[in-house]
Amino acid sequence: MFSSIDHSMMLRAIELAKRGRFTTAPNPNVGCVIAQGATIVGEGFHYQAGQPHAEVFALRAAGDQAKGATAYVTLEPCSHFGRTPPCAQALINANISRVVCAMVDPNPKVGGRGIEMLKIAGIEVQTGLLAADAQALNLGFIKRMKTGLPYVQLKLAASLDGRTALSNGESKWITGPEARADVQRFRAKAGAVLSTSSTVIADDPSLNVRWSELGEPVHAEYPEAALRQPTRVIIDSKNRVTPDFKLFSLAGKTLLARAEEGQETWSDSVSQVLIPKQDDSEQLNLTSLMLELAKQDINHIWVEAGAELAGGLLAAGLVDELILYQAPKLMGCDSRSLINLKGLTSMSQVLNLEITDVRMIGPDLRIIARV
Amino acid sequence: MFSSIDHSMMLRAIELAKRGRFTTAPNPNVGCVIAQGATIVGEGFHYQAGQPHAEVFALRAAGDQAKGATAYVTLEPCSHFGRTPPCAQALINANISRVVCAMVDPNPKVGGRGIEMLKIAGIEVQTGLLAADAQALNLGFIKRMKTGLPYVQLKLAASLDGRTALSNGESKWITGPEARADVQRFRAKAGAVLSTSSTVIADDPSLNVRWSELGEPVHAEYPEAALRQPTRVIIDSKNRVTPDFKLFSLAGKTLLARAEEGQETWSDSVSQVLIPKQDDSEQLNLTSLMLELAKQDINHIWVEAGAELAGGLLAAGLVDELILYQAPKLMGCDSRSLINLKGLTSMSQVLNLEITDVRMIGPDLRIIARV
Repeated sequence: MFSSIDHSMMLRAIELAKRGRFTTAPNPNVGCVIAQGATIVGEGFHYQAGQPHAEVFALRAAGDQAKGATAYVTLEPCSHFGRTPPCAQALINANISRVVCAMVDPNPKVGGRGIEMLKIAGIEVQTGLLAADAQALNLGFIKRMKTGLPYVQLKLAASLDGRTALSNGESKWITGPEARADVQRFRAKAGAVLSTSSTVIADDPSLNVRWSELGEPVHAEYPEAALRQPTRVIIDSKNRVTPDFKLFSLAGKTLLARAEEGQETWSDSVSQVLIPKQDDSEQLNLTSLMLELAKQDINHIWVEAGAELAGGLLAAGLVDELILYQAPKLMGCDSRSLINLKGLTSMSQVLNLEITDVRMIGPDLRIIARV
Repeated sequence: MFSSIDHSMMLRAIELAKRGRFTTAPNPNVGCVIAQGATIVGEGFHYQAGQPHAEVFALRAAGDQAKGATAYVTLEPCSHFGRTPPCAQALINANISRVVCAMVDPNPKVGGRGIEMLKIAGIEVQTGLLAADAQALNLGFIKRMKTGLPYVQLKLAASLDGRTALSNGESKWITGPEARADVQRFRAKAGAVLSTSSTVIADDPSLNVRWSELGEPVHAEYPEAALRQPTRVIIDSKNRVTPDFKLFSLAGKTLLARAEEGQETWSDSVSQVLIPKQDDSEQLNLTSLMLELAKQDINHIWVEAGAELAGGLLAAGLVDELILYQAPKLMGCDSRSLINLKGLTSMSQVLNLEITDVRMIGPDLRIIARV
């Protein structure tokens, strides 16, 4: 059904899409290649919300050569007037004769309508080429569109025996500088960084993206001027944080998730969102929180917090992926645990994961596992 | 100093040496290539204690062509009459003109004397080619010769959060069948498998090598007829085990490490060795145990036991390598810990390791770390 030319064109479109991975949030990453047979005549990718879509850039580059060409798009072209006019119409206007989409748009506002529009205009449309690779570009966007929940990556760092700090709390620098730079790159791709007031009060962290720490390969495609700060979301069920913590004065927005509004005076970059408490608990209902964050167009959440929140999110089934950094150390059995997850009495209750990626990050090990 | 021919000949000798890795204990693995320039005229490796050394097999294969040839040996040729006549003399008798050794023999009975013998006979001798690779062939033999202690590999299996069993003890099959087959291959290379009476009483394990589980690639070079059982060493400080546990009736020897001799009636394959207790403890002194095992010609110990022995060996500085299987599961923070290592109050007391190998073994992760 698809030729080897089709395959290599779509691979190229996927590569292009990735170049927006630090900047498109809350929009999806999309790449587009326009080709006459084996010759690329135009390329484009979506770079930032509010800017043109991938297809528009590719059509501009192709000019008259778009006529009779095939357009390869990693996501179904949009059919609705959003911040930009519909791309399906732009492809029709350019006299494209065939469109290959890696996947149908999971957004219920579009879902198949772009394809329909193209077909009605007499354009040959095929879907499903390299669909899994295209889905991997937009795990957050797809999950939010399909379920109303964001895609959640839980970051943990521990010793080889699964401990995060000595019993007296001492823990500074369990993992090395390479792992910390790796965390910067994950933060930079996320829509939000989620943490807790306990972490803020204990460590006064920045929880921001620091351009200087992203590393050379990222700098090559992500200029400092385009630096986007993920929203910092702080769970503060007892209104314990105050405006003098460092993160509140850094660039980017902060969202305080609280049970009741606090009366502190916050700068314009800080807002409070009220989340109901969990039944029989002083904790916020984490599912309600996630639904609220998705409503605020947050596709993809990077969690950096302690064992308590890690256990709560896992127990509530809200974690999609675990990113576990293991330092080559042994910290002993009276040190602090990685995850507060209690009361398992049968192996059938144990959480099963699938390890999808393992690599060394400096002297440390990074394990990615799907929950 | 060494040509590219020298390099490829020594690489071949190292490959040959590896073919004895399941069978040579307590002898070292040694490979030998005899070459006239770039042409191999004889090859050999040491296969089993009591059988001829690598050099003898290679000389037999080379016949008259050994005259004027270069012999590449992964370990210095022996100079003493042991179970076989000295190989240095055999090389001299065959009119070899040059000998390249990857490393000098760490055995104080030989240590340089073989080289000396060859030099006195007018043979050109060079050492140090691919020394690190040659050392890796015989970590146990080298450590025992140099320190009087065996090389200790500590096997552990845990969930990603560092737990081995639920709080009620339930733990069956944390890791998958691929990891269990991998453990078989480690056992098969060890001089002894070390465990405890607690493990024997709790699980009634076999702690043996099962030929059928070694896998096709191993079967190709290790016939069932040559199957060697590592000595099973069971730490039994309170004389708790009895002859009816399964492992005592399996092929191979078992050594009971006890503080006092027990009066049970054991089969001929079981012997008792007395080890002093640790000061202020009911536990055996683990360093004394290791010194005793080395005295019994055990180079290399594979430890399969619980958190208690793991913690004791690590605290005593007796572990060379950790082999950690991590199952893609999360078991929670009230589950059982991987290692009983207590009372660390400063990050400077934390045990630092170096990860040397990481790979997937079926669905599980295997981490090898040098202590």
